[in-house]
Amino acid sequence: MVHNFSAGPCILPQSVFKEASEALINFDDLGLSIIEISHRSANFVAVMEEARSLVKELLHVPDEYDVLFLQGGASLGFLTVAYNMIRENKKAAYINTGAWAKKAAKEFGQLGETDIIASSEDRNYSYIPKSIETGDDHDFLHFTSNNTIAGTQFKQFPNVSAPMVCDMSSDIFSRKVNVSDFDVIYAGAQKNMGPAGTAVYIFKKDILGQSSVKIPTMLDLNTHAQKDSMFNTPPVFAVYVSMLNLRWLKQNGGIEWIESVNQQKADLLYNEIDNNPLFTGTTDVEDRSNMNATFLLTEEALTDTFNSMWADANISGIKGHRSVGGYRASMYNALPIESVQVLVDVMKELAQKHG
Amino acid sequence: MVHNFSAGPCILPQSVFKEASEALINFDDLGLSIIEISHRSANFVAVMEEARSLVKELLHVPDEYDVLFLQGGASLGFLTVAYNMIRENKKAAYINTGAWAKKAAKEFGQLGETDIIASSEDRNYSYIPKSIETGDDHDFLHFTSNNTIAGTQFKQFPNVSAPMVCDMSSDIFSRKVNVSDFDVIYAGAQKNMGPAGTAVYIFKKDILGQSSVKIPTMLDLNTHAQKDSMFNTPPVFAVYVSMLNLRWLKQNGGIEWIESVNQQKADLLYNEIDNNPLFTGTTDVEDRSNMNATFLLTEEALTDTFNSMWADANISGIKGHRSVGGYRASMYNALPIESVQVLVDVMKELAQKHG
Repeated sequence: MVHNFSAGPCILPQSVFKEASEALINFDDLGLSIIEISHRSANFVAVMEEARSLVKELLHVPDEYDVLFLQGGASLGFLTVAYNMIRENKKAAYINTGAWAKKAAKEFGQLGETDIIASSEDRNYSYIPKSIETGDDHDFLHFTSNNTIAGTQFKQFPNVSAPMVCDMSSDIFSRKVNVSDFDVIYAGAQKNMGPAGTAVYIFKKDILGQSSVKIPTMLDLNTHAQKDSMFNTPPVFAVYVSMLNLRWLKQNGGIEWIESVNQQKADLLYNEIDNNPLFTGTTDVEDRSNMNATFLLTEEALTDTFNSMWADANISGIKGHRSVGGYRASMYNALPIESVQVLVDVMKELAQKHG
Repeated sequence: MVHNFSAGPCILPQSVFKEASEALINFDDLGLSIIEISHRSANFVAVMEEARSLVKELLHVPDEYDVLFLQGGASLGFLTVAYNMIRENKKAAYINTGAWAKKAAKEFGQLGETDIIASSEDRNYSYIPKSIETGDDHDFLHFTSNNTIAGTQFKQFPNVSAPMVCDMSSDIFSRKVNVSDFDVIYAGAQKNMGPAGTAVYIFKKDILGQSSVKIPTMLDLNTHAQKDSMFNTPPVFAVYVSMLNLRWLKQNGGIEWIESVNQQKADLLYNEIDNNPLFTGTTDVEDRSNMNATFLLTEEALTDTFNSMWADANISGIKGHRSVGGYRASMYNALPIESVQVLVDVMKELAQKHG
């Protein structure tokens, strides 16, 4: 068994891989593959509707919100939310907590004035700015809930007067969230939702039609909302696997259950990082991400030794992002705590032998 | 065995379903699913590069062209090509041969002046306009090579002075094409290339950076060209299955082979439509699509009988689009000629019993 700590695309439940694998040959006992049927068929419409319903159910999405599955990833989402949320002020507040937050801010700059009201760029994104406030002239506040590269996470969301728009790509479905605090939540699928190739948008219906600029057809959330997420051919397989994964989450106990599991995994690993003299975390302790733990060896000379040891233990995907260095262990929903224990054991063994 | 005549998403080779199904459990013998590995891993980069190379090889794409796999389908492509091909005139020529062509034309209207220089809307899109000419003030000519809904197809492409941009979503890889006649060819995957969720763009490299408007990051072909189609996380599975399908096409003899097979299938069905008194085609004979054959019963009273007969023969997906009525048999690359024969036999049987 491979212990897959990949930062994304990432591990999903084995049962999901198995069911998806079978559906590629024979879906719903139709004698057809899931990828060769019409997206207008009753069978696929049922998949799309179940996927949307599961998002609503798992996150307790209020009735006045809609849920869509679109293409383009969060990167296209940066532009989509800018177009849909720009208002008469044509000015928006962005929090810069990392590479993705910065890219999101840049996209708004094509339509209006981007106001970076807080940033952690001064310390290589190793912390989350606090005491966020917006002004009356901000159309909205945009931030990134979890920073995959830097390994930081908002533990408490801002409480501001402007409508909030959040890119939750790397921690959606990992913890409880009060959806009604946000006007728009969006997320690329390839962490806790499904395979790469779709993104989920959760938004207050009354934001539609309020933009102060003309929105191109495909970037207008209203286009897709009017057609129940089927304006054009959806990414059938990515939506199907997302549905299977959300079904798995529900069957196991939902967000309340996974939040507790994710906390146990994070506690296990961060405890080792803090107590093992050979390792040190790269972020402020209070802002540590439960999804992506970033850490360094305190003795660089042990790099090759440690790398061989974790590779021998069948651990995969823990090399750190080049902008941070060291290691990054991503512990998304489907990663079993046993895999974290294997990593911790390797860290302990390194300390015993070389500490 | 189901005879899958679906208009798209549509049939792909059984061997492709099988290999994709296996890769969902264990890809490249990594002990990991194709959808849980990093898109930056050597294994997936190899998939993306093989997919791009296969497009180049199969269509004999000249060296001065690039090939990208992007998200959003052809519907987002309407906007992408408008942004990338608009020049100082801010005016483009469009041929309106159906619902998709019309949607493409509408998207350009957000940036400049759309000039519908030819249309077959007067006869419900049942023919292809001929003698196309562009003016000096047209930035480009856009047309749709095959009209999935109406069942028409350009047998000869226009020969004009303006750069040509073509949406080949429903017949790319089905017949030979002289790529150098076009500045941009683009196509949603879900007919002859792969599953829904990606689109291919084939374009002259020297179109990049020539737009007369500012292009949003994700809609700029240059963004993706600079990063070898990996600017953001690509739709991993859709690209992988497209690669498998293109590999299948190459192994079986490439475009030259499939063009001949597709001609045989089309001849078989259209011959029956023309010779069976109970059926009639809906389009001008010279403009008939080899991909989507549209036809009507001459005696409406036989509708239920015919519908039962083809359903009993395990035929799926031949109900016509609501705007045309009757029947539509889509005969994409992977549909075996045996399936067409089964349909023809049912049509013959209907005539024998009720003609």
